[in-house]
Amino acid sequence: MQPLSHLDTGGEARMVDVTAKAVGARVAVAEARLRMEQSTFEAILTGNAPKGDVLSTARLAGIMAAKRTSDLIPLCHPLPLGAVQVEIVPAPELPGFRVQTTVKTQAQTGVEMEALTAAAIAALTLYDMAKALQKDMVIEQVRLIRKSGGKSGDFEAAEHD
Amino acid sequence: MQPLSHLDTGGEARMVDVTAKAVGARVAVAEARLRMEQSTFEAILTGNAPKGDVLSTARLAGIMAAKRTSDLIPLCHPLPLGAVQVEIVPAPELPGFRVQTTVKTQAQTGVEMEALTAAAIAALTLYDMAKALQKDMVIEQVRLIRKSGGKSGDFEAAEHD
Amino acid sequence: MQPLSHLDTGGEARMVDVTAKAVGARVAVAEARLRMEQSTFEAILTGNAPKGDVLSTARLAGIMAAKRTSDLIPLCHPLPLGAVQVEIVPAPELPGFRVQTTVKTQAQTGVEMEALTAAAIAALTLYDMAKALQKDMVIEQVRLIRKSGGKSGDFEAAEHD
Amino acid sequence: MQPLSHLDTGGEARMVDVTAKAVGARVAVAEARLRMEQSTFEAILTGNAPKGDVLSTARLAGIMAAKRTSDLIPLCHPLPLGAVQVEIVPAPELPGFRVQTTVKTQAQTGVEMEALTAAAIAALTLYDMAKALQKDMVIEQVRLIRKSGGKSGDFEAAEHD
Amino acid sequence: MQPLSHLDTGGEARMVDVTAKAVGARVAVAEARLRMEQSTFEAILTGNAPKGDVLSTARLAGIMAAKRTSDLIPLCHPLPLGAVQVEIVPAPELPGFRVQTTVKTQAQTGVEMEALTAAAIAALTLYDMAKALQKDMVIEQVRLIRKSGGKSGDFEAAEHD
Amino acid sequence: MQPLSHLDTGGEARMVDVTAKAVGARVAVAEARLRMEQSTFEAILTGNAPKGDVLSTARLAGIMAAKRTSDLIPLCHPLPLGAVQVEIVPAPELPGFRVQTTVKTQAQTGVEMEALTAAAIAALTLYDMAKALQKDMVIEQVRLIRKSGGKSGDFEAAEHD
Repeated sequence: MQPLSHLDTGGEARMVDVTAKAVGARVAVAEARLRMEQSTFEAILTGNAPKGDVLSTARLAGIMAAKRTSDLIPLCHPLPLGAVQVEIVPAPELPGFRVQTTVKTQAQTGVEMEALTAAAIAALTLYDMAKALQKDMVIEQVRLIRKSGGKSGDFEAAEHD
Repeated sequence: MQPLSHLDTGGEARMVDVTAKAVGARVAVAEARLRMEQSTFEAILTGNAPKGDVLSTARLAGIMAAKRTSDLIPLCHPLPLGAVQVEIVPAPELPGFRVQTTVKTQAQTGVEMEALTAAAIAALTLYDMAKALQKDMVIEQVRLIRKSGGKSGDFEAAEHD
Repeated sequence: MQPLSHLDTGGEARMVDVTAKAVGARVAVAEARLRMEQSTFEAILTGNAPKGDVLSTARLAGIMAAKRTSDLIPLCHPLPLGAVQVEIVPAPELPGFRVQTTVKTQAQTGVEMEALTAAAIAALTLYDMAKALQKDMVIEQVRLIRKSGGKSGDFEAAEHD
Repeated sequence: MQPLSHLDTGGEARMVDVTAKAVGARVAVAEARLRMEQSTFEAILTGNAPKGDVLSTARLAGIMAAKRTSDLIPLCHPLPLGAVQVEIVPAPELPGFRVQTTVKTQAQTGVEMEALTAAAIAALTLYDMAKALQKDMVIEQVRLIRKSGGKSGDFEAAEHD
Repeated sequence: MQPLSHLDTGGEARMVDVTAKAVGARVAVAEARLRMEQSTFEAILTGNAPKGDVLSTARLAGIMAAKRTSDLIPLCHPLPLGAVQVEIVPAPELPGFRVQTTVKTQAQTGVEMEALTAAAIAALTLYDMAKALQKDMVIEQVRLIRKSGGKSGDFEAAEHD
Repeated sequence: MQPLSHLDTGGEARMVDVTAKAVGARVAVAEARLRMEQSTFEAILTGNAPKGDVLSTARLAGIMAAKRTSDLIPLCHPLPLGAVQVEIVPAPELPGFRVQTTVKTQAQTGVEMEALTAAAIAALTLYDMAKALQKDMVIEQVRLIRKSGGKSGDFEAAEHD
């Protein structure tokens, strides 16, 4: 069975050595969904209109979290980031919101964890702002949508919008 | 419709004023699940045995993230925390892992976001350690299981283990 | 001449001992102004309308900076914060923007530095978002407007809006 | 009218994509002034002499803040920094102090925000150390003095020492 | 054999629950020593005189590290701190420097780790500033000198200055 | 006498300008030792067996601290890190534990401080976990074992295992 790359031969956690890898363009796209009741969904849409800060607060939280990823995920490499984008769109079919994040860099390792962390923190921030209305909202489908760059090649999730 | 507590009357985000609330015991329990393929599940269990660092790394990441919550969630109050516990158990039925977090404090506001953030970051850390094996693992069901303390009263999720 | 409280008798910096002070309600209000050319002012107003993120980004940055104050100002005490509010209003007479921040807590020491840091960082964030248009914008009048609570009594700036 | 670079076409905040920009030498110089009463000015000078920590504390706070800039300013890119210098000189004509900061790097984007943040935090730290003597000190003229490097070319403020 | 308090009955790390403990005055004093060659010792003393920033930089680093302790030591509780003092004195008998730190708070748990972390980081900062002169300086005797407050009672190290 | 590189000609602390230095491979290895009583040593070994989190918690703390070095040591440059490894081995002859850290990067300056900070924080974390059993454990011999890369050439400590 293929061993875990983050463990050395003695089973101890380590930050993988990337110093021999080539610097290259890396992109990762991730998403998260926050499912809620119809009434909560409408309250957020109302609170956000016409110029409320609900979605912009969650977007900013996601962007800033991407930059903190290596502080949060113990074995992540600290990286310069070249671009971070967080989009949050209403998803009436849930009902709730979909968060989609895109992170780019030029580095020796990928930015999947940055994109996933941004998505999770943006969704948690939406939860925080609406939790006085509903406590049993659920964050679902925090997952990688696609990545490109690096020796492991490109990846695209089987089904996504 | 009930307005969002984190917006002022002009729709602008603010940190809610809790200075008039009573200090009291607060507890929150949250969970997250990480779903993966059977082969990844087995690789993690193998990598963790007999003394590998996989689950302990994710537990530690969750504990430390609970302490960083107010740095990550823009409108969260910075709080002293009295206890943080993160449990990660194999869930063969997913297959994958369940993360359950418990946070306690004596404060003027609750610790739901601390428990949820710990659960999400612990699950993301597991993802990070196994992502060389499988990129389409999915984090599901990041949600509050129960809370107690505070004026809004106790909460318990409808269905949980 | 009255000595500086943050130096000990040997002239060395220290964090002042507040452990014997009473816990009480503390409020501080601070402001900052960002002066710019008329064309930059109009571009920000346009960019912010109808639902642009310019002012909300700066508000959030101010709120989050208030929570980081003791990490930034070396001799500041780490404090729980009970409320943080950041308002940013267009000031056509500058032209530019006025930032006003309010921070409240129940603690053994005041929150003047939290309010001032929030005001400065919110103004810097506005600068950042508009600096591609104009580099010689100037942040002015970062100052305390009022404070209450604590042994040193209340303070109100001589002239303010 | 030229749109704001930090907003996408929908008006949403984003971290600008710099991955296609060339890595090059970047330098930024910024300043801030802290104006105070003559008696406060003299108390700081006395407190700092012969070996007091007042100005060195503020210098260090500025240097460390430069390194935290991307944590504080939401849309700033995290960058390696090659040099940070903070000078604080007495300015009897204010009376008060002038802070001048210089930041250098080799990167795909500039370090104006790092220099400005260092200047603002150094001035706030001076305020903190003297606020027991005078609460209505004012931070003025936080501004960029010059920058070089990058596609937008060099900049030098119209009037400065 | 007495089990470790930071492990639960399954051997898993946790942040110990202190919510049932009384809030009380806590003090901890710690030290560290940095041993070096005579020539390095003299260079630091010279660099520090008459107004050099060497010792003040290390003092500040220690004070700021005390405030970051719960971010660094995974199972430490985040606490408000009431006072932090870092003294660094030349120790010709090493030759080198002795760092002594004092941390006070009113809390449910002690501040030993804050005092020890401040001492270690202050010594590391001295090392950093002199490492161009000598790389084999050694940090020794990072230890607790005394503590008071809390159920475990007072402690004083057997031998110290 | 050779002046300190971290002071400018006026004796003021600065972050040394490395922008003209070549990017190259840098490696640093450091160690720390934690000396304790035999009974504490045995309690940790027991607590850690068969799958306890004691040593893994300290390892993780060391790895994460390496990434925070430039936040802690005021004049350290923020750097991307390519690899961090922390090994902790029982040392019955102390009795106690030896921590050995290895940090690698491709950068314009070295990673000695990252390796030393990781070693010190890992040892402090071990202290934290065992301090309920023994308060007079001592951290010793925090020192650089070897470094390579950079203009100052390679270094290897005179005596080490």
